[in-house]
Amino acid sequence: MIVVMKSTSSDLDVNHVLQFLENHGLTGHLSQGVERTVIGVLGAVGATGIPGGIGGINPSIGEALEGLPNVESVVRVSKPYKLASREFHPEDTIVEVPAACVSGGKIRIGGKEVVMMAGPCTVESEKQLMTTAEAVRKEGAVVLRGGAFKPSTSPYGFRGLGVAGLKLLAKARAEFGMPIITEVMTPTDVELVCEYADILQIGTRNMQNYMLLDEVGRSGKPAVIKRGMSSTFEEWLLAAEYVLAQGNRNVILCERGIRTFEKATRNTMDISAFPMTRILSHLPIISDPSQGTGRRDLVGPMSLASVAAGADALLIEVHPNPDEALKDGAQSITIPQFRELMPQLENVARAVNRSLVIK
Amino acid sequence: MIVVMKSTSSDLDVNHVLQFLENHGLTGHLSQGVERTVIGVLGAVGATGIPGGIGGINPSIGEALEGLPNVESVVRVSKPYKLASREFHPEDTIVEVPAACVSGGKIRIGGKEVVMMAGPCTVESEKQLMTTAEAVRKEGAVVLRGGAFKPSTSPYGFRGLGVAGLKLLAKARAEFGMPIITEVMTPTDVELVCEYADILQIGTRNMQNYMLLDEVGRSGKPAVIKRGMSSTFEEWLLAAEYVLAQGNRNVILCERGIRTFEKATRNTMDISAFPMTRILSHLPIISDPSQGTGRRDLVGPMSLASVAAGADALLIEVHPNPDEALKDGAQSITIPQFRELMPQLENVARAVNRSLVIK
Amino acid sequence: MIVVMKSTSSDLDVNHVLQFLENHGLTGHLSQGVERTVIGVLGAVGATGIPGGIGGINPSIGEALEGLPNVESVVRVSKPYKLASREFHPEDTIVEVPAACVSGGKIRIGGKEVVMMAGPCTVESEKQLMTTAEAVRKEGAVVLRGGAFKPSTSPYGFRGLGVAGLKLLAKARAEFGMPIITEVMTPTDVELVCEYADILQIGTRNMQNYMLLDEVGRSGKPAVIKRGMSSTFEEWLLAAEYVLAQGNRNVILCERGIRTFEKATRNTMDISAFPMTRILSHLPIISDPSQGTGRRDLVGPMSLASVAAGADALLIEVHPNPDEALKDGAQSITIPQFRELMPQLENVARAVNRSLVIK
Amino acid sequence: MIVVMKSTSSDLDVNHVLQFLENHGLTGHLSQGVERTVIGVLGAVGATGIPGGIGGINPSIGEALEGLPNVESVVRVSKPYKLASREFHPEDTIVEVPAACVSGGKIRIGGKEVVMMAGPCTVESEKQLMTTAEAVRKEGAVVLRGGAFKPSTSPYGFRGLGVAGLKLLAKARAEFGMPIITEVMTPTDVELVCEYADILQIGTRNMQNYMLLDEVGRSGKPAVIKRGMSSTFEEWLLAAEYVLAQGNRNVILCERGIRTFEKATRNTMDISAFPMTRILSHLPIISDPSQGTGRRDLVGPMSLASVAAGADALLIEVHPNPDEALKDGAQSITIPQFRELMPQLENVARAVNRSLVIK
Repeated sequence: MIVVMKSTSSDLDVNHVLQFLENHGLTGHLSQGVERTVIGVLGAVGATGIPGGIGGINPSIGEALEGLPNVESVVRVSKPYKLASREFHPEDTIVEVPAACVSGGKIRIGGKEVVMMAGPCTVESEKQLMTTAEAVRKEGAVVLRGGAFKPSTSPYGFRGLGVAGLKLLAKARAEFGMPIITEVMTPTDVELVCEYADILQIGTRNMQNYMLLDEVGRSGKPAVIKRGMSSTFEEWLLAAEYVLAQGNRNVILCERGIRTFEKATRNTMDISAFPMTRILSHLPIISDPSQGTGRRDLVGPMSLASVAAGADALLIEVHPNPDEALKDGAQSITIPQFRELMPQLENVARAVNRSLVIK
Repeated sequence: MIVVMKSTSSDLDVNHVLQFLENHGLTGHLSQGVERTVIGVLGAVGATGIPGGIGGINPSIGEALEGLPNVESVVRVSKPYKLASREFHPEDTIVEVPAACVSGGKIRIGGKEVVMMAGPCTVESEKQLMTTAEAVRKEGAVVLRGGAFKPSTSPYGFRGLGVAGLKLLAKARAEFGMPIITEVMTPTDVELVCEYADILQIGTRNMQNYMLLDEVGRSGKPAVIKRGMSSTFEEWLLAAEYVLAQGNRNVILCERGIRTFEKATRNTMDISAFPMTRILSHLPIISDPSQGTGRRDLVGPMSLASVAAGADALLIEVHPNPDEALKDGAQSITIPQFRELMPQLENVARAVNRSLVIK
Repeated sequence: MIVVMKSTSSDLDVNHVLQFLENHGLTGHLSQGVERTVIGVLGAVGATGIPGGIGGINPSIGEALEGLPNVESVVRVSKPYKLASREFHPEDTIVEVPAACVSGGKIRIGGKEVVMMAGPCTVESEKQLMTTAEAVRKEGAVVLRGGAFKPSTSPYGFRGLGVAGLKLLAKARAEFGMPIITEVMTPTDVELVCEYADILQIGTRNMQNYMLLDEVGRSGKPAVIKRGMSSTFEEWLLAAEYVLAQGNRNVILCERGIRTFEKATRNTMDISAFPMTRILSHLPIISDPSQGTGRRDLVGPMSLASVAAGADALLIEVHPNPDEALKDGAQSITIPQFRELMPQLENVARAVNRSLVIK
Repeated sequence: MIVVMKSTSSDLDVNHVLQFLENHGLTGHLSQGVERTVIGVLGAVGATGIPGGIGGINPSIGEALEGLPNVESVVRVSKPYKLASREFHPEDTIVEVPAACVSGGKIRIGGKEVVMMAGPCTVESEKQLMTTAEAVRKEGAVVLRGGAFKPSTSPYGFRGLGVAGLKLLAKARAEFGMPIITEVMTPTDVELVCEYADILQIGTRNMQNYMLLDEVGRSGKPAVIKRGMSSTFEEWLLAAEYVLAQGNRNVILCERGIRTFEKATRNTMDISAFPMTRILSHLPIISDPSQGTGRRDLVGPMSLASVAAGADALLIEVHPNPDEALKDGAQSITIPQFRELMPQLENVARAVNRSLVIK
């Protein structure tokens, strides 16, 4: 249930509603837009220790809420996700990230400008990271990606440099002014990774690691939630809801390909995810064409397609020498390929009335 | 196996090779490009009536071929499809279709210009067809789509107007100068449909209807082969190979979405099909975002994404009043929506160094 | 809509209902069970030449029907398939096939006995067929399978011996008294194949070849409809509905594996298809573990699982020398493997209160 | 790489090999079967802090190992998983679990007897758990299942009673002598859950939660690893390898259905998983037909099919009143349904030369 306040409503009116909800054992999530204020109503935890869920709200509560001062209407959200739904928050959410490298000192993800995030799949060494960071920054990337904790399908595979990797990322940020996006894999690492990262990344294998989602929610950090490799839009938005429900509004979705029967590509990128989540939700959505295809020669065209379909940012794996990469070299593009891609992206962005953040 | 002739080779040299192949019970498929001539070698039908396939070619034949005059090299094609492979035919194939409505009188599919094909899912009445044809022509479409024979999942559903539908399509062509693309569902209908259609369409359910593919191959007509809803790129190119193997070089692929676990969209469009088939094959590839998404509100963004990723044409369902359509109204866009889409497509086409055929 | 007659109703009452329907432009499909008679009501073809479908039936017609003599009730069938639905025909359908090799002279598919169908994937030669037929008959198979017209993914692959193959099958039937099941791929071949076959098989690639389904429906022959490799239960039952709607009640379903992301097996057998279609439909359902797995070493266990889950028959590829098979040798079991499997199947059949037809 | 010792080898010979490996920076995993002893050789962690993996082993090491006393052969394991592979450990692994309720005091999973595990999806209350435990024990179940920590797709759904639930499970074990299987969702909970559980369960969403797998590996507890809902056999066995690589040999696989396009069932159970993993691996494999189908009316037939195909145990959701269940009631069977199922299972088990553990 969502309570929509009149445009003339005051803080007092809003508090009145929140108090009413509390008196009835419910929780109100406040969302103050430019145009109007809405309050999401969630079911409370009952005496049994069992959360009541949304379904448990008595319809008569809705009628009573409609009678409170300056309440315009009470809307039932039809989706299982509430805070993530477009119904709850009709305006686009924009997630802001501090970035020394751009004028104004911050990047806005979800606005008119398309944001370039690039870097190695995995931090392998200081030289590899610094070379890549310098090159992608020069070509216009404004966020640096790089894995310090890496999921490996095999226990004998490379699992990342860990803290040493995080420290190298921090060093690159200091040198190039680029905010850092890096993966966090388990709840107990969230605090540590937050010390170094500007944006947390939840990987496809962890999209339904609910305790991780809770912890990332509590951290308040901007968080990219990659789509689970066989997750529906609904399940994905419910994963976002976990983070939002903890009070963290800085949630960004990331399409990275789904698992299908096709074998020629590592995954099948679902480009319809960009317009579709924009219909269902107010959250920004970005594209990972490297994981999405698993093939270097498809990264360019799929980046262009993502921007044409409405992606708010691109997350691209770049490696100074992909064939020597410790991980996922086959899907990393080279620095010259990245240089060639940028003006093409700029052109497509302009064709859909957007532009790239490049300064 | 492919025989590549030297650039200085004469018709005599080519005939020499063809004769050699025939003497050894093999068949040569000739492909004369601007740069060079290549001959695809296929296994012959043996005395048992069982085609020998490619695998059965004796390696010593290859060596002998290399010794013939003006043969540059003999290449083994690594893919199960031969005539459809990029290795066999390195240059892009362009399929030409006569079109009174454009200057020059023909449309080229697979070249620099992106071709707009639009019209109703199914021909329902003269008024519906003419209204739609006039409107989409006015906005820049140059090919008219419309189903006369329609596959229906239920035996009680609408299966099209049949011959009456074909006649209406011919009338629309006469009036608006637009060539016609329409579906053919069974081998015995190929001759009939060829009388009316400029481009045959083989639907997703018939991609592996081999006798239909054979017959369409024999017709020589330009043919669009829609990807089977659970077909790999390889199976799709083998379907194209069926048509090519009958001597019909006018084959066009069409991505129309594949079947996945996602339920919010009717199918999942595999946008990577555009660049990927361009790597594997020389054939043009077009996009059907209407079937590909099943949702009117996704047709626009997915059209833009298709063009950004390299689609050579778009096949879009337009209906004067989609909510009253007898079939697939949910995925048909309105005429005003089509009008709005065209300049956006033009912009994206220009961003990737292409343009729309609109005159 | 379904009209259920009282157990005391006469032929006159039934005719009364049929006449009433005809007067209202509707069609009645009669189904006379042991317990009761029901009439399926289908929408008529309207003046526009467009079939009206089920949805178009006026609800007041239902009320009027309820008032006719000895009509017990009028039921709306909730599924898109009607004649195939369990609601329409509550009792199990049993398809009977003449078989000289069994006592009583006919096999019943869908009854208490589990029917063994075995033979080569493809008829390759008289010797191969006769050897296999003799061996599988000796071990207890009562129906002989063998492809004369074979779908081949590649145009260069083996497509079967055609009519010569059909003649060999007829010869084997004459010799071993086993009825024949063989594939028909295109409408114009139905008449020909019906001359030789006792059971027609519609392959997975043709499950939505609607003109073939229509023709098989008109033939009246027992027909096995293999599940499309990415078809839902609903689409499969609608394919069955096509055949049933032409008046052919001898429809048998066949689960042969669906396409998933798993690569270790050729397909993923959906064993839940056996109990699930039994809930949704009255039609018999059989199992093809050879196509379903693509691996010889899985055919045994998956045969046992099929029978345990309720399969009415097994369709197994057996080859005297699988490694020399022209087609699908990897999934054909040997004659000794078949011999070993039979008593295991008998044991599992008995464990679920069934038995094998073996005499 | 695997070192196979001669049957006449002594502990001294084995230690010799282990010492040799250590001297070359490698790790040996010892596996002592009844027939022979084999040593799995894994790559060591190099000076860079990067694990070397299997690929990094110098082939000359293999030759040197073959020259050591009483080494019979050195085998390269062709699969990416080593310790989980059948090549490494040719004999079936049997996992033993203490169980007061059976004679002998322990249950063996992976042997000739099929083990029944049953209980509620989620522990809801003392009464619900005790009622169910008593009833399933009476009918022959020997392991009690019940979730205390539950993954919920929605943050507003029921997430289990937590520690209170574990305590109720311990109480049920004390009362009915049944060992407990329950889910653990995050690494920091492993120690806690180990205090109460006899078998840890890793859910489908956590199959690639590598830090959880590591921790479960270190615990040494018997662990059931459910197949990820879109995981291949290879990825699943690599998840098992994570646990095995930490020295925990008590790994049990569990097929619980995969995600496909079919919508009539919650998941598609891949029954071929039972024979297929038995070919690839030595680990026991059990069946979860409740999650696997999501439908109460399919649990029975799919249980029978699982046993027929080779499942070593069944994990079945039973609820005294499924329609009032807080979670997954639609897939829980009732106590009378469980009672009816047991003798059917016994019959099928006997048909494949196995039996149920029931005393």
